[in-house]
Amino acid sequence: MLSQTTSSVWSGVRETDFEVIAKDVLGRVGRFGTKSGDVETPHLLPVISPRRQVIPPKEMKESFGCDAIITNAYLLKKEPPELTSNVHSFLDFSGVIATDSGAYQILSHGGIDAEPAEIVQFQERVGADIAVILDVPTGDDASREHAEYTVGETLRRADELDKLKTRKDVLWVGPIQGGLHLDLLEESAKAMSRREFDIYAIGSPTRIMEQYLFDKLVDMILTVKQNLPPNKPVHLFGAGHPAMFSLAVALGCDLFDSASYALYARKGRYMTELGTTKLDEMEYFPCSCPQCASHTPRDISSRNNGTREAFLARHNLHACMTEMKRVKEAIVEGRLWELVEARARAHPRLLTGLLHVKPYAKFLERHSPSTKKRGILIYGASSLARPEVERHRLHLRENYRPPQGKNVLVLVPRPGEKPSHTNRAMIEFIERLQVSPAHICLYGYPFGVVPIEIDDVFPLSQFEASPPDEESLQFAGNCLREYLKTHAYKRVVALDPDTETSNVLLQGCKLQCKKSKIPLRTIRVPDQWLEKKQIHTKLIRFIGGTGRRARRLRGMQIHSKNL
Amino acid sequence: MLSQTTSSVWSGVRETDFEVIAKDVLGRVGRFGTKSGDVETPHLLPVISPRRQVIPPKEMKESFGCDAIITNAYLLKKEPPELTSNVHSFLDFSGVIATDSGAYQILSHGGIDAEPAEIVQFQERVGADIAVILDVPTGDDASREHAEYTVGETLRRADELDKLKTRKDVLWVGPIQGGLHLDLLEESAKAMSRREFDIYAIGSPTRIMEQYLFDKLVDMILTVKQNLPPNKPVHLFGAGHPAMFSLAVALGCDLFDSASYALYARKGRYMTELGTTKLDEMEYFPCSCPQCASHTPRDISSRNNGTREAFLARHNLHACMTEMKRVKEAIVEGRLWELVEARARAHPRLLTGLLHVKPYAKFLERHSPSTKKRGILIYGASSLARPEVERHRLHLRENYRPPQGKNVLVLVPRPGEKPSHTNRAMIEFIERLQVSPAHICLYGYPFGVVPIEIDDVFPLSQFEASPPDEESLQFAGNCLREYLKTHAYKRVVALDPDTETSNVLLQGCKLQCKKSKIPLRTIRVPDQWLEKKQIHTKLIRFIGGTGRRARRLRGMQIHSKNL
Repeated sequence: MLSQTTSSVWSGVRETDFEVIAKDVLGRVGRFGTKSGDVETPHLLPVISPRRQVIPPKEMKESFGCDAIITNAYLLKKEPPELTSNVHSFLDFSGVIATDSGAYQILSHGGIDAEPAEIVQFQERVGADIAVILDVPTGDDASREHAEYTVGETLRRADELDKLKTRKDVLWVGPIQGGLHLDLLEESAKAMSRREFDIYAIGSPTRIMEQYLFDKLVDMILTVKQNLPPNKPVHLFGAGHPAMFSLAVALGCDLFDSASYALYARKGRYMTELGTTKLDEMEYFPCSCPQCASHTPRDISSRNNGTREAFLARHNLHACMTEMKRVKEAIVEGRLWELVEARARAHPRLLTGLLHVKPYAKFLERHSPSTKKRGILIYGASSLARPEVERHRLHLRENYRPPQGKNVLVLVPRPGEKPSHTNRAMIEFIERLQVSPAHICLYGYPFGVVPIEIDDVFPLSQFEASPPDEESLQFAGNCLREYLKTHAYKRVVALDPDTETSNVLLQGCKLQCKKSKIPLRTIRVPDQWLEKKQIHTKLIRFIGGTGRRARRLRGMQIHSKNL
Repeated sequence: MLSQTTSSVWSGVRETDFEVIAKDVLGRVGRFGTKSGDVETPHLLPVISPRRQVIPPKEMKESFGCDAIITNAYLLKKEPPELTSNVHSFLDFSGVIATDSGAYQILSHGGIDAEPAEIVQFQERVGADIAVILDVPTGDDASREHAEYTVGETLRRADELDKLKTRKDVLWVGPIQGGLHLDLLEESAKAMSRREFDIYAIGSPTRIMEQYLFDKLVDMILTVKQNLPPNKPVHLFGAGHPAMFSLAVALGCDLFDSASYALYARKGRYMTELGTTKLDEMEYFPCSCPQCASHTPRDISSRNNGTREAFLARHNLHACMTEMKRVKEAIVEGRLWELVEARARAHPRLLTGLLHVKPYAKFLERHSPSTKKRGILIYGASSLARPEVERHRLHLRENYRPPQGKNVLVLVPRPGEKPSHTNRAMIEFIERLQVSPAHICLYGYPFGVVPIEIDDVFPLSQFEASPPDEESLQFAGNCLREYLKTHAYKRVVALDPDTETSNVLLQGCKLQCKKSKIPLRTIRVPDQWLEKKQIHTKLIRFIGGTGRRARRLRGMQIHSKNL
């Protein structure tokens, strides 16, 4: 069963395998083992403060189904040593406990009073299941010099780990630094991936996310992902708002950690998958969690600070956990991109981030599954970087060859019915041209051009689209032009119903034919042109040319009983 | 308190007032009284079958906070009369009970064995709180003749009501027919609104919604809304999927009724605000409702049919009720349009519907509140029909006048910082031109052009926008052109940073100036142009002309200490 973690057999040695159960875009439902049980990803590790727990860790497991949490090794180390000999007992939590190293404290306080070696040894000693070396975070505003230093020093500390560690049952996290200096980030990812870590982490995005710079976050995540081994989980440090989980997971992040649920609660803020609201300004709880179902905002607003905070922390954690379940279910159903599209309308900057994925479309395509259970949904420009759209574009350019002997391209506007193979009139139309040199290709939005013989290949007929926007029409037009450039047809005949789509697409087609010196004939067609005999006759004349075969073809057609 | 219905004082006469508590777009949180208590809108009346109740009505109230339900008078009438003397006892429900007339059965079975008068009298007798005359539904595929008949016959039956009714404590619903014949729908709405009904209802959209024809649904709702008194609740018959609640409410629907929660459950289908999934294909429940929190899809799949159906019906009803709370909270927060944008990405046809609102922008604007607590979010073409965007466009065209004596239009690209008034360099720039004939207007996306003196008026500086798409740039360009057409400037000076936005907007500006014979000077400006002295000098030369005032102005500027 996917939705419960299965306990693996432990024999003192940690399990390093990351088992991917389901995948969509770069997102994956996966599982890896630790000495305290399995972690199913994608997963948000709620940050537990060693000092003050607004939700007891035990309750996280029992009421929220949360099997893995994270606490701070540096802060834990400040507690009385007699209490912290075992982090599981200290936190009264039998699930998986990750410990962060205190790097975040370096970033916010400029430094900490502990040595990297101490922190490594301490995490081993307290029995953390997942531990992080004390890296040096780059932050979002580092100069190049400082960024270089953070990358180098973090690597040096990564190298030290081998000498320091004594246990084999702790999973170690290798943090990748470089911040917004993408070349350094790439270098860091490459160097870190040559070292043996169980999990890789993307450092320093917290302030970038606080400023809603999701386009920059996309750059950071994808720069790192392109340079990491695909078989390891990737942790995005400090990402804790449900509105952005789906995007980050779709780009390949598996683990998250955040104290947001508690920090927002302290400030009276109520999280939802579409944004954050102040409790004091609310009239209705837009949520069905056990907390919200039995209270109204006014009930809660009038309570004391502690009660309000506890209520909000629980709701916020429910909001995060539920969104993560939505993301997992979307992966299983093959509609993660669709979820990202919906969430990209939680804030314009999230849409900015989604649109920023375009230059990485080829990378996404290469690592995305190629079939799914259901059709895809297209919403214009923001859907163009979808792996399915990119895959068709690349296929036409790099692998596809038109059938032998078919050297006259007949461009037919895509009929409403999909696949066109199931449209009776279209079937007859195709059959009639079988012996001719005509190669029928459907043109339209969003795929640009689809050779008829692959029209039923997923998802070329398995999609639903909203009315095309200008960007998508231009994209489709470019696909068609690129197709004409790649494949050497002798002649092109285009059927033109004079719609917005046909105008944009055929305009590009005309330019390309002129440039490549391919003769082009355009036939203006009415609605229901498939039923019109004169269109067929005209078409056949244009396809045929003047040879013996053409005459035979013409003869066949004109006396055809089918028309 | 908004989130609880207050009990009103009853004295045998029904309350006809519809009190609107909060409003956004055409959506409203409202309240009206019935003899069994108040109904707070927007509200989904779950359909309760008289025969078979998958969720007992009592539980609807206790566990779902649902104070008002609907049952079918025609089907109820088939039950033994001794049981149905009081519908509240029959259903064991003390809240508000609406009864539908059986018109849906006419639509699906072609007719029913009951007379209109019987149905009216029966509804009164059983003590329905809200009742519907037995109208004749048009359906989605009626010929014009049949549609005319349904409109006329429904009106005739509406007229009969006065003679038939004996109670004063029942609220009567006047159904509006005409289906997809919009002129008949308009006629029906006008005629029905001349009759005294407490609630008006839009008939026949069920099949249209089943086919996802949301553009047609938008036409139907807005045709009706434009012809109804604004102070009455409007019921949309048969709308029961949470993905479309926000759109329907934003267009002015207050009441819904649907059996979908139960019908989908019977077919093993799990509803969410983003669509529907088959239970058997699910791995995770993306929901925090009490049902889903404690089970997994595999648990439920393996149970017997009855348990599965009951589970799904409860979850589906939670999904509907929670979405309605989301809609209400969005109205209170003034971000209903934002919720509609997010839901328009639940299916491309919903986006098609939202885009179809554009021709009705003026009507929406007229009836939408003009200020809100927070800034608005802009997502390109789908946001252009927003009342706030339309309001500015109309204001510039119909009411706005540039300040006296300011006859040189200076077009300045909108700086990133908003409002521009708070930008120090911009303030100095404005002050320096105060004595000149220059009228500074900011140009940009999405508003096209904003005269500087109204730049801080909501929401001209209180918005966030994703990168502009082609449609939005064209829209902004048209606003700027229309502005140039409407207002008689002597000269135009445009600062051009040569961005995608400035290219589109200034292109239109050039064409319009040529057409209107207004001299135009363009100054190519670098980034940070506000800090560059030579830009100011050039600008002043272009503004000044050659008169005495111009010389004075030039003198002032060149010796200005500010630069």
